[in-house]
Amino acid sequence: MDIQQILNEIQSEVQPLLKQGRVASYIPELAAVSPQKFGMALRTVDGAAYTVGDALERFSIQSISKIFTLTMAMQLAGDALWQRVGREPSGNPFNSLVQLEYENGKPRNPFINAGALVVTDVILSHLDNATATVRNIVCALCGQADVDFDPVVAASEQATGHRNKAMAHFLKSFGNLDNEPERVLDAYFHHCSLAMSCLDLCEATLFLANNGVAPVSGDMIMTTNQVKYINSLLLTCGTYDAVGDFAYRVGLPGKSGVGGGIAAIMPGHFSVCVWSPGLDASGNSLAGTKALELFTTKTGVSVF
Amino acid sequence: MDIQQILNEIQSEVQPLLKQGRVASYIPELAAVSPQKFGMALRTVDGAAYTVGDALERFSIQSISKIFTLTMAMQLAGDALWQRVGREPSGNPFNSLVQLEYENGKPRNPFINAGALVVTDVILSHLDNATATVRNIVCALCGQADVDFDPVVAASEQATGHRNKAMAHFLKSFGNLDNEPERVLDAYFHHCSLAMSCLDLCEATLFLANNGVAPVSGDMIMTTNQVKYINSLLLTCGTYDAVGDFAYRVGLPGKSGVGGGIAAIMPGHFSVCVWSPGLDASGNSLAGTKALELFTTKTGVSVF
Amino acid sequence: MDIQQILNEIQSEVQPLLKQGRVASYIPELAAVSPQKFGMALRTVDGAAYTVGDALERFSIQSISKIFTLTMAMQLAGDALWQRVGREPSGNPFNSLVQLEYENGKPRNPFINAGALVVTDVILSHLDNATATVRNIVCALCGQADVDFDPVVAASEQATGHRNKAMAHFLKSFGNLDNEPERVLDAYFHHCSLAMSCLDLCEATLFLANNGVAPVSGDMIMTTNQVKYINSLLLTCGTYDAVGDFAYRVGLPGKSGVGGGIAAIMPGHFSVCVWSPGLDASGNSLAGTKALELFTTKTGVSVF
Amino acid sequence: MDIQQILNEIQSEVQPLLKQGRVASYIPELAAVSPQKFGMALRTVDGAAYTVGDALERFSIQSISKIFTLTMAMQLAGDALWQRVGREPSGNPFNSLVQLEYENGKPRNPFINAGALVVTDVILSHLDNATATVRNIVCALCGQADVDFDPVVAASEQATGHRNKAMAHFLKSFGNLDNEPERVLDAYFHHCSLAMSCLDLCEATLFLANNGVAPVSGDMIMTTNQVKYINSLLLTCGTYDAVGDFAYRVGLPGKSGVGGGIAAIMPGHFSVCVWSPGLDASGNSLAGTKALELFTTKTGVSVF
Repeated sequence: MDIQQILNEIQSEVQPLLKQGRVASYIPELAAVSPQKFGMALRTVDGAAYTVGDALERFSIQSISKIFTLTMAMQLAGDALWQRVGREPSGNPFNSLVQLEYENGKPRNPFINAGALVVTDVILSHLDNATATVRNIVCALCGQADVDFDPVVAASEQATGHRNKAMAHFLKSFGNLDNEPERVLDAYFHHCSLAMSCLDLCEATLFLANNGVAPVSGDMIMTTNQVKYINSLLLTCGTYDAVGDFAYRVGLPGKSGVGGGIAAIMPGHFSVCVWSPGLDASGNSLAGTKALELFTTKTGVSVF
Repeated sequence: MDIQQILNEIQSEVQPLLKQGRVASYIPELAAVSPQKFGMALRTVDGAAYTVGDALERFSIQSISKIFTLTMAMQLAGDALWQRVGREPSGNPFNSLVQLEYENGKPRNPFINAGALVVTDVILSHLDNATATVRNIVCALCGQADVDFDPVVAASEQATGHRNKAMAHFLKSFGNLDNEPERVLDAYFHHCSLAMSCLDLCEATLFLANNGVAPVSGDMIMTTNQVKYINSLLLTCGTYDAVGDFAYRVGLPGKSGVGGGIAAIMPGHFSVCVWSPGLDASGNSLAGTKALELFTTKTGVSVF
Repeated sequence: MDIQQILNEIQSEVQPLLKQGRVASYIPELAAVSPQKFGMALRTVDGAAYTVGDALERFSIQSISKIFTLTMAMQLAGDALWQRVGREPSGNPFNSLVQLEYENGKPRNPFINAGALVVTDVILSHLDNATATVRNIVCALCGQADVDFDPVVAASEQATGHRNKAMAHFLKSFGNLDNEPERVLDAYFHHCSLAMSCLDLCEATLFLANNGVAPVSGDMIMTTNQVKYINSLLLTCGTYDAVGDFAYRVGLPGKSGVGGGIAAIMPGHFSVCVWSPGLDASGNSLAGTKALELFTTKTGVSVF
Repeated sequence: MDIQQILNEIQSEVQPLLKQGRVASYIPELAAVSPQKFGMALRTVDGAAYTVGDALERFSIQSISKIFTLTMAMQLAGDALWQRVGREPSGNPFNSLVQLEYENGKPRNPFINAGALVVTDVILSHLDNATATVRNIVCALCGQADVDFDPVVAASEQATGHRNKAMAHFLKSFGNLDNEPERVLDAYFHHCSLAMSCLDLCEATLFLANNGVAPVSGDMIMTTNQVKYINSLLLTCGTYDAVGDFAYRVGLPGKSGVGGGIAAIMPGHFSVCVWSPGLDASGNSLAGTKALELFTTKTGVSVF
């Protein structure tokens, strides 16, 4: 199979879709990104890498950062984490407070915003310099020392993120935050502001395709079983309230962000990342989802 | 890997769990089944078969029948099916009417009861002798001419199934049933009353592990892409409101029934079925789920 | 105060509104009624009566019948009734199943459809010839022997009322119907099909303004305290999910029906009924609500 | 009727209930109040006043303050207020965020917390020194210059009120707060901390029984129609999610607070206030509700 050829085809085929999505507009920094951007990268566990388009340009990874914070929280808290956050798909929008109220402040899973706030709270309670550590770990995972937060994005989210603030105070009212909401929010907004490229993300998530070993460093990040856990959570909860549609069309565990990125995993084989800023109604990259669907259809490769 | 040895170990390890589940009691026929029953079967695409315990004893497959009716409806209606039923996890109990009301009578997915009623309605509209055809297809899939409905179970469900009747009339009120509710319910209760063994189910579902080809008959049941679709639906929607937990622990697409059966698929490799009548709080077989979890943990084999 | 003059003014002032409402169309018999109909009647406890427009023409009282069935059920079952139905406003549409599911089959109040089905079930369990008795009681209350069900309307509701059928089976599934759903529905549809005029309704509800004594017969229908109970239920639950708006604008306890009728009570003083078939978005008569609002504003008379 | 004698009887009859309620415990200042406290006062529009028990002792009026802020907001904003807050009973707990999400940030009515925050926001946008003005108006209404906020209570609510903070940020995220959430919350917590006695509250709310004229000052606070509006809102929305039960048992418009106070109105005749700190499951004073029920039953006086 000629992977590079397939990526080239996909880039060509998704061009008409680029203008159909809507770029996230709730903060000026995201709204300013061109909807014409499109990049895709694939990195195999054997060391091969393929890129197309804007695959080396960094963008705001937003919720894709939840992969890294969940990985850390699972290592820091172990199974105790699941006392505070569930692992079921929510069936509701990612920023919904309804379920949180009905279920007494326990978020459905670690990938909706409420769950990620709890995950951030866990990290803050275990680490002195939590936010810097998150950055350092991501840098080590992708072997790029200069991956960093975008302070302007983080500040914009802080200024306008009333829905997330509502959620943090709501969690606190149920006793499901140990730290002050303001502190948790500050860390959370920083994590979401990480700027990475498709290739950076392929490198950083490749341990999930490689039995828990980070290829860049050779470090064992987690056990095979833990990798199964995270990949299953990505498949059932990773793409907002379109997880069924994403599994149906793409058939890979994946995590999307409102910056237009999606990182997906083929366990045992490769990681693949795509970036296209225009979003569909569910908040997933419209052309990005299509690109991944084309990829698994053309190659016949999926977990199913 | 010695599969038979692993099945033997699992049978032994789950014994203490058999009494912890609760056997479904809403109809006398299900309540009368011994909670001590346990069977497990595995059938590879290469023709090997393994069984342990009560793997040859037939039981009421109940919602596992939804795999077969969905397969038929996808063939009969094509993509038009998705106009009438979604493909997202529901995040709600399998017999909930709440979401149906909020979403104007379109069930979230074909595996919750409301969705399966719509699937049954589609079959009834396409086939003259729909219920007999369902039976014939299942017989052909598993190569056993005597697989049949249990008329006593079907009649009991008819007599007590007020929740399903409510659901059918509710769907009708939204215009999402073409046939009369009573007729759809009769067919639905018959499908659920199919009696099959673990080994029967392994045979009948093996096409989902074999790129769409039924090994018994050599028939191409569906395309590789359609197999991907059904397996993804099983993984994201197949085990009631515990799909996240099932994916996390087991890591295979699967479908459970309140008779205590679970059928699971490892695409490209095998189907595996388990039966233990005691259910957990979500309605999935308690020991059966554990048996599958032990299986994927011991073998290190899962889609993740 | 010249009541007749005020009624004449109101009739004139609401003319432009008659075409703004939407006549109920789910059964042909209701859809066929002219939206230009308008009638209003007032009957004081002192024996005075006033009418305007089509106040003597009979129409389908629909949910206004719930006043009479609740009165009967309170007499037959006493406080035990409140074990099976609540007395809080629902905050949801009158035919919603959502709350019923969340609250385990106990309807919020006796005036939403689910509650009225339970009320009907109570009457059926206490009386041999329940439906005929309902008719006889209404005839006696208004002193008109010929008030009767409309069999065509009842049959139409039976043929199309899938939402009410869903509700009855749902109640049955929770164990909150003693009789078979089909029997309860038949009685319910008959009660709703009663045909009465504004003046008939004024007579029949006047006991609620007269400390429980029916002026026509002189019979004590209920105690002063029971009258307080029913009037409070009318005010907090009688006009679908617009009770707040109705209380705000009109300020009287009242009950509306999708036939376009509204019956209201000024305790100690009078009953007042209005009929105009065009409905607002909440299912209350649009011009009828306005007519009552004009009446309490012009007279300065309301319970507040 | 000997009102004083009736109040004395009531005080005696509710003694066994005082220990059955639960005193609000979320802030130390409320938790410290003795559950044995009981006071009741009645003030007629003719100038008569009656008291029993601790009717002159000041307590934290909490949500009863919403009467005064709503009165002010209706005067300041007129009907435009109803663009931002509804006037229907919520059918949900007073601090629920569910409905707010489903209804896009428009609170159901001005007496649930979310609605009162919007009301406070309106006042802040119209008045330079809003909080001081609220205090001055309440002082003028009851003719007591020393009615004041309790700064310790306000500070405690500020420190622990994460649910209210969640609600304010949630409203802000929907664009339904003009001012910063922190500023609205500070004002809101101050209003709730007002300390008044039963007799103070009788005086301060008497304009609602007196066609809008405050008897102490002779000032016309609002029109007869506006009085009808506020009393109807009190009756349909004033006692949390027990409005139906309160209307059924008591039959008067009223407003309760978690400090254990309830203020009720008999339009045209009197205001009546009761205080007993122990609450029922709905958050209304348990003995206080019973005292009012006894009062309307003994006197036969209610709006119904």
